[in-house]
Amino acid sequence: MNIDMIRAAATRLRGYVRETPLLSSPFLDELTGRRILVKAECLQHTGSFKFRGAWSAVSALDDEQRKSGVIAFSSGNHAQGVALAARMHGAPAVIIMPSNAPAIKIANTRALGGEVVLYDRKTESREEIGATLAKDRGLTLIRPYDDGQVIAGQGTTGLEIAAQARAIGVTQAEVLVCCGGGGLTSGVALALEAEAPDMRVHPCEPEGFDDVARSLAAGEIQSNPSQTGSICDAIVTPQPGDLTFPILKRLCGSGYTVSDTDCLRAMAEAFQRLRIVVEPGGAAALAAALYQSQADTVIAIATGGNVDQTMFTRALGEM
Amino acid sequence: MNIDMIRAAATRLRGYVRETPLLSSPFLDELTGRRILVKAECLQHTGSFKFRGAWSAVSALDDEQRKSGVIAFSSGNHAQGVALAARMHGAPAVIIMPSNAPAIKIANTRALGGEVVLYDRKTESREEIGATLAKDRGLTLIRPYDDGQVIAGQGTTGLEIAAQARAIGVTQAEVLVCCGGGGLTSGVALALEAEAPDMRVHPCEPEGFDDVARSLAAGEIQSNPSQTGSICDAIVTPQPGDLTFPILKRLCGSGYTVSDTDCLRAMAEAFQRLRIVVEPGGAAALAAALYQSQADTVIAIATGGNVDQTMFTRALGEM
Repeated sequence: MNIDMIRAAATRLRGYVRETPLLSSPFLDELTGRRILVKAECLQHTGSFKFRGAWSAVSALDDEQRKSGVIAFSSGNHAQGVALAARMHGAPAVIIMPSNAPAIKIANTRALGGEVVLYDRKTESREEIGATLAKDRGLTLIRPYDDGQVIAGQGTTGLEIAAQARAIGVTQAEVLVCCGGGGLTSGVALALEAEAPDMRVHPCEPEGFDDVARSLAAGEIQSNPSQTGSICDAIVTPQPGDLTFPILKRLCGSGYTVSDTDCLRAMAEAFQRLRIVVEPGGAAALAAALYQSQADTVIAIATGGNVDQTMFTRALGEM
Repeated sequence: MNIDMIRAAATRLRGYVRETPLLSSPFLDELTGRRILVKAECLQHTGSFKFRGAWSAVSALDDEQRKSGVIAFSSGNHAQGVALAARMHGAPAVIIMPSNAPAIKIANTRALGGEVVLYDRKTESREEIGATLAKDRGLTLIRPYDDGQVIAGQGTTGLEIAAQARAIGVTQAEVLVCCGGGGLTSGVALALEAEAPDMRVHPCEPEGFDDVARSLAAGEIQSNPSQTGSICDAIVTPQPGDLTFPILKRLCGSGYTVSDTDCLRAMAEAFQRLRIVVEPGGAAALAAALYQSQADTVIAIATGGNVDQTMFTRALGEM
């Protein structure tokens, strides 16, 4: 896993993945006394950065693999990314999703051509279900984060951040990333190591699901006691990945842990000041940027915008 | 008023005005059976395309004029654009706003450094108040649409649309524009006449405030019987401008008239499918694209995203 894989992914992604804008607002700068820049990956195809990793992985398959199809397990955003990327490559896609995922994510995955298989997050292992189905049908498993080509695709976000920040004179910053298994965080950290070495990446997680922050502090992989109970469903994972953790450990600063309420408040600020729709798990980095970071310049990735109207209305109630 | 003024404005705007993305969603294409592209000017600085015209006008002033300051009358988005553009040029700005404008727009204009003067939309003429203040204080009046440099700035949106559409192979389309006095619509029409001659611009207005559509049909300027009662406050104006109407008449196709309910439904689709925040008046073109247009390819400009949580929650109720 290295910068060359990210650069190669960027070449495969060109023309298919959207270069998302780096947004700002004088109101957010005034609120915090810092310069706040927001990489709006909620505007990516399928509404999250996951489309990058999915496109990277599907486009790296050989013809035979593509014809047989792919399988993915995901709380939603990876699912949509894989479903659309597979459809655009003419490949079948089976998606394993938790039965308690937001209804809109399940419906969207089906509408994008994915065959959805539901499982119970509390009693079943999605990894086991995925492995069995992959074997039975000859499908290639695309892991949500512990996969070199997926990390490479997510890392293209970091290449864009480096170039867009440089264009406005920013070379030093804290780069805050909403973090589940660490695919985006490790990819961005690798990209910035090469392209913007004065930027430091920090993972951001919900309270009670801060396995990455605790793993970084301990120097070895720690897991979460539970995988349910957060509104930030998109970034709740059991523990950092075997591929991602060594990268995170080598390159990242300490993790931020944010409350559900601060994620909702950050969603409301993004609505009012940036006019973008961000889901709770996609707002963790912005919450850390607005309410915790002490850096002069903070770049937060708004990783996803797939949120239903009930949750979004709740966020607007925090204004 | 010609394409050279728009190209000159584009040069002055470079690096200060955001190139906004041209968004799309397979769900909107499926909903309509057409190709729908959305120019997201709600992501522009100050949350609307108005910042373009404001920057163009302020940057065209001589040093003496800039030092004395500028004055603008506006229902809100032009106000914010002028306030921020003036502040970034070090020029004082007086903004005349209707007393019933959304509270957030008044507060934002003040926060951006504008001195706000309120008037009653039903009993007072903002044009008269503006002219008097301009004379008394030596301020340069920046009209919201009937001003060559403002039209030139708004027209840069059209230059971007032509280039972004061409990059994805689109040269023929209906281009739908939310239309008040016609500054953006006429500027975009001039830009596309030069850069994408197979695209046709159509103004989009709220029911009961369709002065431009009726003026185009009649071949001469018609006015609205009332200026209050629409949720699309950003695009309610008395009648097309003396500068803009001849351009609209020469270049535009017939106007679309949309209901308040369809604007709210379009806001909900933009929330769910594009993850952008659009205000009612900024959603008129998207409403016409989704529910009325018969063209194979439709480009709708989402002109603004300055909406308070009450109105946005109402829109989400239309899902």
